[in-house]
Amino acid sequence: MVIVMQPSAQPADVQTVVDRVEAAGGQAFVSRGVRRVIVGLVGDVETFASLDIGAMPGVAQVTRVSTEYKLVSREHHPERSVVRVRGVPIGPDTVTLIAGPCAVETPEQTLAAARMAQSAGATMLRGGAFKPRTSPYAFQGLGEAGLRILADVREETGLPVVTEVTSAHDVEMVAGYADMLQIGTRNMQNFALLQAIGETRVPVMLKRGMNATIQEWLMAAEYIAQRGNLEIVLCERGIRTFETATRNTLDVSAVPVVQHLSHLPVIVDPSHSGGRRELVLPLSRAGIVAGADGLIVDVHPQPELALCDGAQALIGKDLDELAKAVVDLTAYMGRTPARRRYRSAS
Amino acid sequence: MVIVMQPSAQPADVQTVVDRVEAAGGQAFVSRGVRRVIVGLVGDVETFASLDIGAMPGVAQVTRVSTEYKLVSREHHPERSVVRVRGVPIGPDTVTLIAGPCAVETPEQTLAAARMAQSAGATMLRGGAFKPRTSPYAFQGLGEAGLRILADVREETGLPVVTEVTSAHDVEMVAGYADMLQIGTRNMQNFALLQAIGETRVPVMLKRGMNATIQEWLMAAEYIAQRGNLEIVLCERGIRTFETATRNTLDVSAVPVVQHLSHLPVIVDPSHSGGRRELVLPLSRAGIVAGADGLIVDVHPQPELALCDGAQALIGKDLDELAKAVVDLTAYMGRTPARRRYRSAS
Amino acid sequence: MVIVMQPSAQPADVQTVVDRVEAAGGQAFVSRGVRRVIVGLVGDVETFASLDIGAMPGVAQVTRVSTEYKLVSREHHPERSVVRVRGVPIGPDTVTLIAGPCAVETPEQTLAAARMAQSAGATMLRGGAFKPRTSPYAFQGLGEAGLRILADVREETGLPVVTEVTSAHDVEMVAGYADMLQIGTRNMQNFALLQAIGETRVPVMLKRGMNATIQEWLMAAEYIAQRGNLEIVLCERGIRTFETATRNTLDVSAVPVVQHLSHLPVIVDPSHSGGRRELVLPLSRAGIVAGADGLIVDVHPQPELALCDGAQALIGKDLDELAKAVVDLTAYMGRTPARRRYRSAS
Amino acid sequence: MVIVMQPSAQPADVQTVVDRVEAAGGQAFVSRGVRRVIVGLVGDVETFASLDIGAMPGVAQVTRVSTEYKLVSREHHPERSVVRVRGVPIGPDTVTLIAGPCAVETPEQTLAAARMAQSAGATMLRGGAFKPRTSPYAFQGLGEAGLRILADVREETGLPVVTEVTSAHDVEMVAGYADMLQIGTRNMQNFALLQAIGETRVPVMLKRGMNATIQEWLMAAEYIAQRGNLEIVLCERGIRTFETATRNTLDVSAVPVVQHLSHLPVIVDPSHSGGRRELVLPLSRAGIVAGADGLIVDVHPQPELALCDGAQALIGKDLDELAKAVVDLTAYMGRTPARRRYRSAS
Repeated sequence: MVIVMQPSAQPADVQTVVDRVEAAGGQAFVSRGVRRVIVGLVGDVETFASLDIGAMPGVAQVTRVSTEYKLVSREHHPERSVVRVRGVPIGPDTVTLIAGPCAVETPEQTLAAARMAQSAGATMLRGGAFKPRTSPYAFQGLGEAGLRILADVREETGLPVVTEVTSAHDVEMVAGYADMLQIGTRNMQNFALLQAIGETRVPVMLKRGMNATIQEWLMAAEYIAQRGNLEIVLCERGIRTFETATRNTLDVSAVPVVQHLSHLPVIVDPSHSGGRRELVLPLSRAGIVAGADGLIVDVHPQPELALCDGAQALIGKDLDELAKAVVDLTAYMGRTPARRRYRSAS
Repeated sequence: MVIVMQPSAQPADVQTVVDRVEAAGGQAFVSRGVRRVIVGLVGDVETFASLDIGAMPGVAQVTRVSTEYKLVSREHHPERSVVRVRGVPIGPDTVTLIAGPCAVETPEQTLAAARMAQSAGATMLRGGAFKPRTSPYAFQGLGEAGLRILADVREETGLPVVTEVTSAHDVEMVAGYADMLQIGTRNMQNFALLQAIGETRVPVMLKRGMNATIQEWLMAAEYIAQRGNLEIVLCERGIRTFETATRNTLDVSAVPVVQHLSHLPVIVDPSHSGGRRELVLPLSRAGIVAGADGLIVDVHPQPELALCDGAQALIGKDLDELAKAVVDLTAYMGRTPARRRYRSAS
Repeated sequence: MVIVMQPSAQPADVQTVVDRVEAAGGQAFVSRGVRRVIVGLVGDVETFASLDIGAMPGVAQVTRVSTEYKLVSREHHPERSVVRVRGVPIGPDTVTLIAGPCAVETPEQTLAAARMAQSAGATMLRGGAFKPRTSPYAFQGLGEAGLRILADVREETGLPVVTEVTSAHDVEMVAGYADMLQIGTRNMQNFALLQAIGETRVPVMLKRGMNATIQEWLMAAEYIAQRGNLEIVLCERGIRTFETATRNTLDVSAVPVVQHLSHLPVIVDPSHSGGRRELVLPLSRAGIVAGADGLIVDVHPQPELALCDGAQALIGKDLDELAKAVVDLTAYMGRTPARRRYRSAS
Repeated sequence: MVIVMQPSAQPADVQTVVDRVEAAGGQAFVSRGVRRVIVGLVGDVETFASLDIGAMPGVAQVTRVSTEYKLVSREHHPERSVVRVRGVPIGPDTVTLIAGPCAVETPEQTLAAARMAQSAGATMLRGGAFKPRTSPYAFQGLGEAGLRILADVREETGLPVVTEVTSAHDVEMVAGYADMLQIGTRNMQNFALLQAIGETRVPVMLKRGMNATIQEWLMAAEYIAQRGNLEIVLCERGIRTFETATRNTLDVSAVPVVQHLSHLPVIVDPSHSGGRRELVLPLSRAGIVAGADGLIVDVHPQPELALCDGAQALIGKDLDELAKAVVDLTAYMGRTPARRRYRSAS
């Protein structure tokens, strides 16, 4: 932590800062410039943060230097991690395609979408049974009935299932059906939910909050990790900006930035960020070559009848192009498409 | 709802739109321009929304016209509402000052802050026992022990208490201590929490999500209202923008905009938006004359020792200025400072 | 300037930073922490900036500490400045109301608007002859003919005139008619224009870029000041955010923040930020009590016929309320409404 | 254009709208719903816009339907365009690599950077002689001396030159040296500059304003086109968002969105958006597979000595990877790297 004093700060102000830091068990190094004094702190930043030094007389600016996240940081764990979901890896050597309907509507629709997903090379199935919707009057998902459909379709197709959980109260129940839990963009800072999932050992996909900085996103992951669950996959799904031509702005730079800061895998959601079918393929390709460890894509057998986000679901021939992109660009990146490995121990 | 067709749309495309709308029980009016066709829909917009007309061939743009919120809208209820919290009104004829510490730390600190609040003219006490923090390593609040302190201080001072609840699971417990529940900015779209509070009849203060549009904020209020609880006070607390000189950007325009759209009271939080003590007074004054129905302000007897957000807590002489502003500017606006009225039926 | 080294930085990396700083005539103070090294620099920040230390091996982060603006900073000039426009002061003891039509259309419309402005207590006239418009097909202003109308109306009413200049090439010509030049939001970083105005000694109103940080805004003012013109008034007119309910989001916090950083006067434009007539009064009041040194407001005798931004122009009875707010709230702030003082030397 | 009336609008209000539209030569179609009336307008939108219908009594909302840009729109010109710069094409069949130093500093540095650019497959040279900088104290470029260096390096290497012009006054002079003019992000709405370049027949690269919507960007291109110059290449260079981990957020979705709306070529600047060397390669790859028609990249022989933006300049081995990406991913997209074609007529 670095403290910059105001030009008008008195020597006594500097001494007060030094005293408080040392009283808290830290060390303070004072550099005197022509117009200003800078104090460098060495010790536990959490302790320093609680001192609220910014409010002390004569202090102009406090800059935090150490990263605030630890368990998910690459400083802590230099090797990039692999998360395995029922034998399907998500990590640095592979590109994992996850596909399925935005919302589970019927057994037939879900199975048809899963078959579409497989034909495009997907090795995991996505599908929502609990849908957080901006309007209380919109379709909210089938709930546990939807989870049963997903489990049946997994039985039929062999695809592991990722599905959203929206409340700490539901974690155990949803984890009884799902292979990977999803935390949606609106719940990225629902700390009760993060902690409840942290208590499980179920893999989790943490979507970036549409208004969250990368720093905050990693701190949200730290909440899960701190409770003991490090099976975390991050998912960039677009941020909110002034641009309205797309639903959200896919922050493709976040992929290499996060991989530099954290050992966790990062995947990209090209469907929800763009919000339009014709953007899914360009953004999928962009995600892979930016270094993403996977993609999560909406497909629907009849998007014009979808109860949720049909406008962005891929259909027929787009899927062939998506399959081709996953194969070719994954190879270009020196990776392989992720396949399920049956392991004796799982 | 208005549908704009693409210039290249075929007559059959237009007919398909019309047919689907009429099959869903609506009416469709077709206007043919030189280059484009526009279709105006009359009927239930929720039904129309579920048709996902934007995904149909030849459709360029879908504009929703009716407001999506109903119960909280001023169209539904033209008179502006008053919410009463243990006899303290929040509404169009008064300005209600709510003050207290960001976090409850000790009985002594909480009582001292409550006395400061009263000296500034506050008639309600704020204080957090459950603190959602970006970092899992930061102080998370005292939990139920903090609620007991708040209840004791209410006993001592007579000030009704507003305090945050962060999880649907805790609603009943927190409501056992609090006079008004607070939903924080990160939980504005925690729909499980909104619905759980909607099931109670306890007044609730709904803070605006730092990334939420006014439309989304009102939809979040609608979630609560739809379950039967209309005792809702909205709180503008700053939005996230590119500017980093302030913690968030107080959107003071939101006060008159929301009052035009909704009958619910709107208050302003000048402490969390600015994040700096010296901004609290100017923003408090600005809030009152923009028409806010109240203010919620951080005070702390020793901000330099605060475990949370000390840098923005008001101290000694600032409180006198705040008291003066509330009295004088409330009068300028033709209102009165809110006082508790003991009612026989409450 | 403070340099934070990466945890993996080698002693040789630190030495290279120190050597380069000292070779450039500065001093470097090294603080070694448990995991990181911090280097504090003392000397000329412009020189340090040109060294691009952030690109050197082992460097994690570079934090600039001294303000980059000098002439406009309050550190440089602690007393708040007064800018006088033909005897009308804009500064800390007064509140100056500037009003007039968005665009000059005809002599009659301009005179009528000026009379409306006076009736509301305005002591300066605004009006655009060069209108930067997003579309090349929109009304672009009357050009020099419009300036002549403004000069005639000044003759008739005695109101000094502020009007926009959009190109360095036009500065001399516009300055021949205007008492104060306006730099619009889209030209805040048109550096050729800033420098051309810096060469004059004509007062200038610098609107904040709708995407500009406060730091960038003050740097733009510094461009003008650096050429010798310190007669600068800053104007907050709203920033671009994700919210679309208002045209821009008035950043009312910017008023006290800027006054803390700079000695220049700051006024508020409530018409262009909100973009809606019913927001002008609340935002005008909010601006005054946030500490603004003035307001600039659109008025139009027949807004429904205006060629530009009619939707936000004040009309009849709103003006009376505006006049009342300026009188009453100016007094509340311990100021006086600005009046023209005829000075022998001007 | 579609007018939505307020629920409280009177029949006379609707009639007034209809009358005004018809008086202006348009047609108005009225659709009456249960709660609201919608009026669809057919005719010239520019005329309608000047009527300021939004300010009329009873009007709730005005939605513009036709695109406001014409000459640059794909509706106007369905085939995607090719812009040729001294025989180097930028268009749908090729990917054009433009590279060079951010700023021209010396003949040696510029030539060395040009050779680096060629080795990476570049067929155009970038380099700034007029540098718009946030601070007046930062290096502002060599001016015309820099242009002469660029012209000499072109002579030596055969690479056509693109360079920035920052003022309408300099257009003719800069065009005497450059093969393509660049309009920087801060000047995207410098309408005098746009119009001056519109009067020439020199190709122009129009960078997106860091705060500009895609709509505004295309309107800025329309300003150039309207004066007769359609040799316009658009350049996405990142937008300003709340995220501070990158200098700006590359909006890679803008590539397919713009290509859908406009026939103009679109290239990507991965250097200025990310602001960090390690992001240039991932963003370059992402740009190509999102469908960009080219890339513009910073290179510098000694970035640690660069006077401008050294932190983002590519060096040695990165160039080989860039060269490989351009070759391989261009082929994947079914395109060819752009090569100069000597044409008899040019």
